[in-house]
Amino acid sequence: LLTVYHLNESRSVRILWLLEEIGAPYEIVRFERDATRRAPAELAEVHPLGKAPVIRDGDLVLAESGAIVEYLLERHRGGRLVPRPDTAAWGRYLQWLHFAEGSAMLPLLLDLFLGMGVIPGGKNGLLGGFVKTELARQLDYVEQELGDKHHLLGAFTAADIMLGFPLDLAERQGHLATRPRLLAYVERLRARPAYARAQAAA
Amino acid sequence: LLTVYHLNESRSVRILWLLEEIGAPYEIVRFERDATRRAPAELAEVHPLGKAPVIRDGDLVLAESGAIVEYLLERHRGGRLVPRPDTAAWGRYLQWLHFAEGSAMLPLLLDLFLGMGVIPGGKNGLLGGFVKTELARQLDYVEQELGDKHHLLGAFTAADIMLGFPLDLAERQGHLATRPRLLAYVERLRARPAYARAQAAA
Repeated sequence: LLTVYHLNESRSVRILWLLEEIGAPYEIVRFERDATRRAPAELAEVHPLGKAPVIRDGDLVLAESGAIVEYLLERHRGGRLVPRPDTAAWGRYLQWLHFAEGSAMLPLLLDLFLGMGVIPGGKNGLLGGFVKTELARQLDYVEQELGDKHHLLGAFTAADIMLGFPLDLAERQGHLATRPRLLAYVERLRARPAYARAQAAA
Repeated sequence: LLTVYHLNESRSVRILWLLEEIGAPYEIVRFERDATRRAPAELAEVHPLGKAPVIRDGDLVLAESGAIVEYLLERHRGGRLVPRPDTAAWGRYLQWLHFAEGSAMLPLLLDLFLGMGVIPGGKNGLLGGFVKTELARQLDYVEQELGDKHHLLGAFTAADIMLGFPLDLAERQGHLATRPRLLAYVERLRARPAYARAQAAA
Protein backbone atom coordinates (compact mmCIF):
# COMPACT_ATOMS: atom_id res chain seq x y z
CA LEU A 1 0.00 0.00 0.00
CA LEU A 2 1.22 3.50 -0.85
CA THR A 3 2.14 5.62 2.16
CA VAL A 4 1.88 9.42 2.27
CA TYR A 5 3.90 11.13 5.00
CA HIS A 6 1.70 14.12 5.62
CA LEU A 7 2.54 17.36 7.41
CA ASN A 8 -0.30 19.66 8.44
CA GLU A 9 -0.62 22.91 6.47
CA SER A 10 1.92 21.85 3.89
CA ARG A 11 2.31 20.93 0.26
CA SER A 12 1.51 17.32 1.09
CA VAL A 13 -2.22 18.02 0.85
CA ARG A 14 -1.63 18.14 -2.90
CA ILE A 15 -0.61 14.50 -2.93
CA LEU A 16 -3.74 13.48 -1.01
CA TRP A 17 -5.78 15.50 -3.51
CA LEU A 18 -4.12 13.74 -6.47
CA LEU A 19 -4.70 10.31 -4.94
CA GLU A 20 -8.35 11.17 -4.28
CA GLU A 21 -8.75 12.34 -7.89
CA ILE A 22 -7.44 9.06 -9.29
CA GLY A 23 -9.05 6.89 -6.63
CA ALA A 24 -5.79 5.17 -5.64
CA PRO A 25 -5.68 3.58 -2.17
CA TYR A 26 -3.18 5.01 0.33
CA GLU A 27 -2.44 5.30 4.00
CA ILE A 28 -1.41 8.47 5.82
CA VAL A 29 1.32 8.86 8.43
CA ARG A 30 0.79 12.22 10.10
CA PHE A 31 3.29 14.79 11.35
CA GLU A 32 2.55 18.08 13.07
CA ARG A 33 4.46 21.35 12.77
CA ASP A 34 6.30 22.29 15.98
CA ALA A 35 5.76 25.43 18.06
CA THR A 36 7.95 27.46 15.63
CA ARG A 37 5.83 26.29 12.66
CA ARG A 38 8.65 24.14 11.29
CA ALA A 39 8.48 20.51 10.27
CA PRO A 40 9.26 18.25 13.26
CA ALA A 41 12.69 16.57 13.42
CA GLU A 42 11.01 13.15 13.07
CA LEU A 43 10.36 13.84 9.38
CA ALA A 44 14.11 13.60 8.76
CA GLU A 45 13.89 9.95 9.80
CA VAL A 46 11.51 9.35 6.90
CA HIS A 47 13.56 11.28 4.33
CA PRO A 48 16.86 13.15 4.92
CA LEU A 49 15.45 16.38 3.45
CA GLY A 50 13.16 16.48 6.49
CA LYS A 51 10.13 17.93 4.77
CA ALA A 52 6.77 17.02 3.27
CA PRO A 53 5.40 15.61 1.07
CA VAL A 54 7.19 12.27 1.06
CA ILE A 55 5.73 9.00 -0.22
CA ARG A 56 6.79 5.41 0.18
CA ASP A 57 6.01 2.88 -2.56
CA GLY A 58 7.60 -0.44 -1.64
CA ASP A 59 11.28 0.29 -1.06
CA LEU A 60 11.21 3.64 -2.81
CA VAL A 61 10.94 6.78 -0.65
CA LEU A 62 10.44 9.96 -2.67
CA ALA A 63 10.34 13.68 -1.89
CA GLU A 64 9.47 16.71 -4.10
CA SER A 65 5.84 17.41 -4.99
CA GLY A 66 6.36 17.53 -8.75
CA ALA A 67 8.35 14.29 -8.81
CA ILE A 68 5.74 12.52 -6.70
CA VAL A 69 2.95 13.70 -9.02
CA GLU A 70 4.79 12.50 -12.13
CA TYR A 71 5.70 9.20 -10.47
CA LEU A 72 2.18 8.43 -9.23
CA LEU A 73 0.52 9.26 -12.53
CA GLU A 74 2.90 7.02 -14.46
CA ARG A 75 2.97 4.10 -12.05
CA HIS A 76 -0.51 3.98 -10.63
CA ARG A 77 -2.88 5.38 -13.18
CA GLY A 78 -1.22 5.58 -16.60
CA GLY A 79 -2.15 8.71 -18.47
CA ARG A 80 -5.00 10.03 -16.35
CA LEU A 81 -4.83 13.76 -15.61
CA VAL A 82 -1.95 14.18 -18.09
CA PRO A 83 -2.27 15.41 -21.71
CA ARG A 84 -1.02 12.95 -24.32
CA PRO A 85 2.73 13.40 -24.97
CA ASP A 86 2.15 13.99 -28.69
CA THR A 87 0.08 17.16 -28.10
CA ALA A 88 1.17 20.79 -27.64
CA ALA A 89 -0.83 20.75 -24.39
CA TRP A 90 1.71 18.29 -22.99
CA GLY A 91 4.56 20.84 -23.23
CA ARG A 92 2.46 23.46 -21.48
CA TYR A 93 1.46 20.87 -18.88
CA LEU A 94 5.15 20.26 -18.10
CA GLN A 95 5.73 23.99 -17.80
CA TRP A 96 2.94 24.40 -15.21
CA LEU A 97 4.13 21.33 -13.32
CA HIS A 98 7.59 22.86 -12.90
CA PHE A 99 6.42 26.48 -12.64
CA ALA A 100 4.37 25.76 -9.51
CA GLU A 101 7.44 25.01 -7.38
CA GLY A 102 10.24 26.33 -9.60
CA SER A 103 8.81 29.87 -9.82
CA ALA A 104 5.45 30.52 -8.17
CA MET A 105 6.30 29.56 -4.59
CA LEU A 106 9.35 31.85 -4.21
CA PRO A 107 7.69 35.31 -4.26
CA LEU A 108 4.76 33.98 -2.22
CA LEU A 109 7.05 32.62 0.51
CA LEU A 110 9.18 35.79 0.51
CA ASP A 111 5.98 37.88 0.78
CA LEU A 112 4.82 35.72 3.68
CA PHE A 113 8.18 35.92 5.49
CA LEU A 114 8.46 39.69 4.93
CA GLY A 115 4.97 40.09 6.38
CA MET A 116 5.84 37.95 9.42
CA GLY A 117 9.17 39.71 9.93
CA VAL A 118 11.12 36.46 9.50
CA ILE A 119 12.90 38.39 6.74
CA PRO A 120 13.62 41.99 7.77
CA GLY A 121 13.14 45.03 5.53
CA GLY A 122 9.37 45.01 5.24
CA LYS A 123 7.16 44.78 2.18
CA ASN A 124 8.24 48.24 0.98
CA GLY A 125 11.99 47.62 1.10
CA LEU A 126 14.27 46.61 -1.78
CA LEU A 127 13.33 42.94 -1.59
CA GLY A 128 9.66 43.80 -1.00
CA GLY A 129 9.61 45.79 -4.23
CA PHE A 130 11.10 42.90 -6.17
CA VAL A 131 8.60 40.48 -4.64
CA LYS A 132 5.65 42.71 -5.49
CA THR A 133 6.74 43.10 -9.12
CA GLU A 134 7.48 39.40 -9.57
CA LEU A 135 4.21 38.34 -7.96
CA ALA A 136 2.18 40.65 -10.22
CA ARG A 137 4.05 39.43 -13.30
CA GLN A 138 3.40 35.78 -12.45
CA LEU A 139 -0.27 36.25 -11.57
CA ASP A 140 -0.78 38.30 -14.76
CA TYR A 141 0.71 35.42 -16.71
CA VAL A 142 -1.43 32.74 -15.09
CA GLU A 143 -4.54 34.90 -15.62
CA GLN A 144 -3.69 35.44 -19.29
CA GLU A 145 -2.99 31.74 -19.92
CA LEU A 146 -6.14 30.66 -18.09
CA GLY A 147 -8.23 33.03 -20.20
CA ASP A 148 -11.83 31.90 -20.29
CA LYS A 149 -10.98 28.25 -19.77
CA HIS A 150 -12.19 26.33 -16.74
CA HIS A 151 -8.74 24.92 -16.02
CA LEU A 152 -5.17 25.70 -17.09
CA LEU A 153 -5.33 23.40 -20.10
CA GLY A 154 -9.09 23.34 -20.56
CA ALA A 155 -9.70 19.90 -19.09
CA PHE A 156 -8.67 19.32 -15.47
CA THR A 157 -5.11 17.93 -15.18
CA ALA A 158 -2.47 17.45 -12.50
CA ALA A 159 -1.14 20.90 -13.48
CA ASP A 160 -4.21 22.34 -11.70
CA ILE A 161 -3.31 20.35 -8.59
CA MET A 162 0.28 21.59 -8.67
CA LEU A 163 -0.64 25.26 -9.27
CA GLY A 164 -3.65 25.06 -6.98
CA PHE A 165 -1.39 25.16 -3.92
CA PRO A 166 0.42 28.46 -4.63
CA LEU A 167 -2.83 30.01 -5.91
CA ASP A 168 -4.62 29.00 -2.72
CA LEU A 169 -1.78 30.65 -0.77
CA ALA A 170 -2.00 33.75 -2.99
CA GLU A 171 -5.73 33.97 -2.30
CA ARG A 172 -5.24 33.66 1.46
CA GLN A 173 -2.58 36.40 1.33
CA GLY A 174 -5.06 38.70 -0.43
CA HIS A 175 -3.40 38.77 -3.84
CA LEU A 176 -6.46 37.65 -5.80
CA ALA A 177 -8.83 40.34 -4.56
CA THR A 178 -8.44 42.32 -7.80
CA ARG A 179 -8.29 39.22 -10.02
CA PRO A 180 -11.82 37.84 -10.26
CA ARG A 181 -10.95 35.29 -12.94
CA LEU A 182 -8.18 33.69 -10.86
CA LEU A 183 -10.38 33.82 -7.77
CA ALA A 184 -13.17 31.99 -9.60
CA TYR A 185 -10.64 29.40 -10.79
CA VAL A 186 -9.42 28.79 -7.21
CA GLU A 187 -13.03 28.44 -6.08
CA ARG A 188 -13.67 25.88 -8.85
CA LEU A 189 -10.70 23.84 -7.63
CA ARG A 190 -11.88 24.03 -4.00
CA ALA A 191 -15.33 22.84 -5.07
CA ARG A 192 -14.02 19.53 -6.43
CA PRO A 193 -15.17 16.54 -4.32
CA ALA A 194 -11.64 15.05 -4.35
CA TYR A 195 -10.25 18.33 -2.99
CA ALA A 196 -12.77 18.26 -0.15
CA ARG A 197 -11.96 14.60 0.61
CA ALA A 198 -8.23 15.45 0.71
CA GLN A 199 -8.85 18.36 3.08
CA ALA A 200 -10.93 16.09 5.31
CA ALA A 201 -8.23 13.38 5.30
CA ALA A 202 -5.41 15.87 5.93
CA LEU B 1 15.06 24.54 -35.87
CA LEU B 2 14.91 24.69 -32.10
CA THR B 3 15.61 28.12 -30.64
CA VAL B 4 17.16 28.69 -27.21
CA TYR B 5 16.67 32.17 -25.75
CA HIS B 6 19.83 32.46 -23.74
CA LEU B 7 20.65 34.91 -20.94
CA ASN B 8 24.27 35.25 -19.84
CA GLU B 9 25.12 33.81 -16.41
CA SER B 10 21.77 32.12 -16.06
CA ARG B 11 20.12 28.73 -15.89
CA SER B 12 19.83 28.67 -19.67
CA VAL B 13 23.38 27.30 -19.97
CA ARG B 14 21.86 24.04 -18.74
CA ILE B 15 19.71 23.79 -21.86
CA LEU B 16 22.71 24.38 -24.13
CA TRP B 17 24.54 21.66 -22.19
CA LEU B 18 21.66 19.21 -22.63
CA LEU B 19 21.44 19.92 -26.36
CA GLU B 20 25.19 19.42 -26.72
CA GLU B 21 24.97 16.12 -24.83
CA ILE B 22 22.29 14.76 -27.16
CA GLY B 23 23.72 16.36 -30.29
CA ALA B 24 20.48 18.12 -31.25
CA PRO B 25 20.78 21.13 -33.58
CA TYR B 26 19.70 24.51 -32.18
CA GLU B 27 20.14 28.23 -32.63
CA ILE B 28 20.78 30.74 -29.87
CA VAL B 29 19.16 34.14 -29.42
CA ARG B 30 21.24 36.04 -26.85
CA PHE B 31 20.18 38.42 -24.10
CA GLU B 32 22.44 40.28 -21.68
CA ARG B 33 21.74 41.13 -18.06
CA ASP B 34 21.27 44.87 -17.50
CA ALA B 35 23.39 47.09 -15.23
CA THR B 36 21.44 45.91 -12.17
CA ARG B 37 22.15 42.24 -13.06
CA ARG B 38 18.52 41.61 -13.96
CA ALA B 39 17.16 40.04 -17.10
CA PRO B 40 16.49 42.74 -19.74
CA ALA B 41 12.89 43.79 -20.41
CA GLU B 42 13.15 42.38 -23.95
CA LEU B 43 12.97 38.82 -22.55
CA ALA B 44 9.34 39.49 -21.60
CA GLU B 45 8.58 39.83 -25.31
CA VAL B 46 9.73 36.22 -25.80
CA HIS B 47 7.82 34.83 -22.81
CA PRO B 48 5.65 36.79 -20.33
CA LEU B 49 7.61 35.43 -17.34
CA GLY B 50 10.55 37.47 -18.64
CA LYS B 51 13.29 35.09 -17.66
CA ALA B 52 15.60 32.43 -19.06
CA PRO B 53 15.76 29.71 -20.19
CA VAL B 54 13.01 29.79 -22.80
CA ILE B 55 12.88 27.63 -25.91
CA ARG B 56 10.80 27.80 -29.06
CA ASP B 57 9.91 24.62 -30.93
CA GLY B 58 7.61 25.49 -33.81
CA ASP B 59 4.69 27.38 -32.28
CA LEU B 60 5.42 26.25 -28.73
CA VAL B 61 7.31 28.65 -26.45
CA LEU B 62 8.30 27.08 -23.12
CA ALA B 63 9.86 28.35 -19.90
CA GLU B 64 11.05 26.46 -16.77
CA SER B 65 14.32 24.50 -16.88
CA GLY B 66 12.86 21.21 -15.67
CA ALA B 67 9.97 21.34 -18.13
CA ILE B 68 12.30 22.15 -21.03
CA VAL B 69 14.58 19.23 -20.10
CA GLU B 70 11.66 16.79 -19.93
CA TYR B 71 10.19 18.13 -23.16
CA LEU B 72 13.43 17.97 -25.15
CA LEU B 73 14.31 14.48 -24.00
CA GLU B 74 10.88 13.15 -24.94
CA ARG B 75 10.47 14.97 -28.24
CA HIS B 76 13.95 15.10 -29.66
CA ARG B 77 15.87 12.13 -28.37
CA GLY B 78 13.55 9.53 -26.90
CA GLY B 79 14.90 7.97 -23.75
CA ARG B 80 18.49 9.19 -23.83
CA LEU B 81 19.81 10.48 -20.50
CA VAL B 82 16.67 9.21 -18.71
CA PRO B 83 16.40 5.92 -16.75
CA ARG B 84 13.73 3.55 -18.03
CA PRO B 85 10.32 4.29 -16.42
CA ASP B 86 10.02 0.73 -15.10
CA THR B 87 13.12 1.06 -12.87
CA ALA B 88 13.49 2.41 -9.32
CA ALA B 89 16.16 4.75 -10.70
CA TRP B 90 13.44 6.53 -12.67
CA GLY B 91 11.67 7.63 -9.46
CA ARG B 92 14.93 8.96 -8.04
CA TYR B 93 15.65 10.65 -11.38
CA LEU B 94 12.34 12.53 -11.14
CA GLN B 95 13.16 13.57 -7.60
CA TRP B 96 16.53 15.11 -8.62
CA LEU B 97 14.92 16.79 -11.62
CA HIS B 98 12.44 18.59 -9.36
CA PHE B 99 14.78 18.98 -6.38
CA ALA B 100 17.25 21.09 -8.40
CA GLU B 101 14.79 23.99 -8.80
CA GLY B 102 12.11 23.08 -6.23
CA SER B 103 14.54 22.92 -3.29
CA ALA B 104 18.23 23.43 -4.03
CA MET B 105 18.13 26.90 -5.57
CA LEU B 106 16.25 28.62 -2.72
CA PRO B 107 18.90 28.55 0.06
CA LEU B 108 21.66 29.25 -2.49
CA LEU B 109 19.88 32.34 -3.81
CA LEU B 110 19.02 33.54 -0.30
CA ASP B 111 22.68 33.04 0.73
CA LEU B 112 23.81 35.02 -2.33
CA PHE B 113 21.33 37.86 -1.70
CA LEU B 114 22.17 38.00 2.03
CA GLY B 115 25.86 38.23 1.10
CA MET B 116 25.18 41.02 -1.41
CA GLY B 117 22.91 42.89 1.00
CA VAL B 118 19.94 42.66 -1.40
CA ILE B 119 18.26 40.98 1.56
CA PRO B 120 19.09 42.73 4.84
CA GLY B 121 19.91 40.95 8.09
CA GLY B 122 23.23 39.39 7.16
CA LYS B 123 24.32 35.78 7.10
CA ASN B 124 24.18 35.54 10.91
CA GLY B 125 20.62 36.83 11.31
CA LEU B 126 17.45 34.79 11.73
CA LEU B 127 17.11 34.08 8.00
CA GLY B 128 20.86 33.52 7.66
CA GLY B 129 20.70 30.82 10.30
CA PHE B 130 17.86 29.07 8.50
CA VAL B 131 19.71 29.28 5.20
CA LYS B 132 22.90 27.82 6.68
CA THR B 133 21.05 24.89 8.25
CA GLU B 134 19.03 24.15 5.12
CA LEU B 135 22.06 24.38 2.86
CA ALA B 136 24.03 21.95 5.02
CA ARG B 137 21.11 19.55 5.15
CA GLN B 138 20.69 19.56 1.38
CA LEU B 139 24.39 19.20 0.60
CA ASP B 140 24.68 16.37 3.16
CA TYR B 141 21.82 14.64 1.39
CA VAL B 142 23.29 15.00 -2.09
CA GLU B 143 26.67 13.79 -0.80
CA GLN B 144 25.10 10.77 0.87
CA GLU B 145 23.05 9.84 -2.22
CA LEU B 146 26.01 10.31 -4.55
CA GLY B 147 28.12 8.00 -2.39
CA ASP B 148 30.96 6.51 -4.38
CA LYS B 149 29.08 6.73 -7.69
CA HIS B 150 30.37 8.85 -10.55
CA HIS B 151 26.98 10.47 -11.10
CA LEU B 152 23.74 10.80 -9.14
CA LEU B 153 22.27 7.61 -10.56
CA GLY B 154 25.52 5.91 -11.52
CA ALA B 155 25.32 6.53 -15.26
CA PHE B 156 25.18 10.16 -16.42
CA THR B 157 21.58 11.41 -16.82
CA ALA B 158 19.76 14.73 -17.23
CA ALA B 159 19.49 14.80 -13.41
CA ASP B 160 23.21 15.63 -13.35
CA ILE B 161 22.57 18.53 -15.74
CA MET B 162 19.73 19.86 -13.58
CA LEU B 163 21.63 19.54 -10.28
CA GLY B 164 24.93 20.61 -11.86
CA PHE B 165 23.75 24.23 -11.93
CA PRO B 166 23.05 24.69 -8.19
CA LEU B 167 26.14 22.65 -7.31
CA ASP B 168 28.29 24.85 -9.53
CA LEU B 169 26.82 27.86 -7.73
CA ALA B 170 27.45 26.20 -4.35
CA GLU B 171 31.07 25.62 -5.33
CA ARG B 172 31.55 29.23 -6.43
CA GLN B 173 30.05 30.42 -3.13
CA GLY B 174 32.57 28.30 -1.21
CA HIS B 175 30.17 25.71 0.14
CA LEU B 176 32.00 22.67 -1.23
CA ALA B 177 35.40 23.43 0.32
CA THR B 178 34.82 20.85 3.06
CA ARG B 179 33.04 18.38 0.78
CA PRO B 180 35.70 16.74 -1.40
CA ARG B 181 33.31 14.17 -2.84
CA LEU B 182 30.86 16.79 -4.11
CA LEU B 183 33.71 18.93 -5.36
CA ALA B 184 35.11 16.00 -7.35
CA TYR B 185 31.63 15.37 -8.78
CA VAL B 186 31.30 19.02 -9.91
CA GLU B 187 34.76 18.78 -11.51
CA ARG B 188 33.70 15.61 -13.36
CA LEU B 189 30.67 17.45 -14.75
CA ARG B 190 32.79 20.44 -15.81
CA ALA B 191 35.20 18.09 -17.59
CA ARG B 192 32.54 16.78 -19.97
CA PRO B 193 33.13 17.89 -23.58
CA ALA B 194 29.44 18.83 -23.99
CA TYR B 195 29.67 21.06 -20.90
CA ALA B 196 32.69 22.83 -22.37
CA ARG B 197 30.93 23.27 -25.73
CA ALA B 198 27.89 24.75 -23.97
CA GLN B 199 30.07 27.19 -22.02
CA ALA B 200 31.79 28.21 -25.26
CA ALA B 201 28.45 28.70 -27.03
CA ALA B 202 26.89 30.61 -24.11
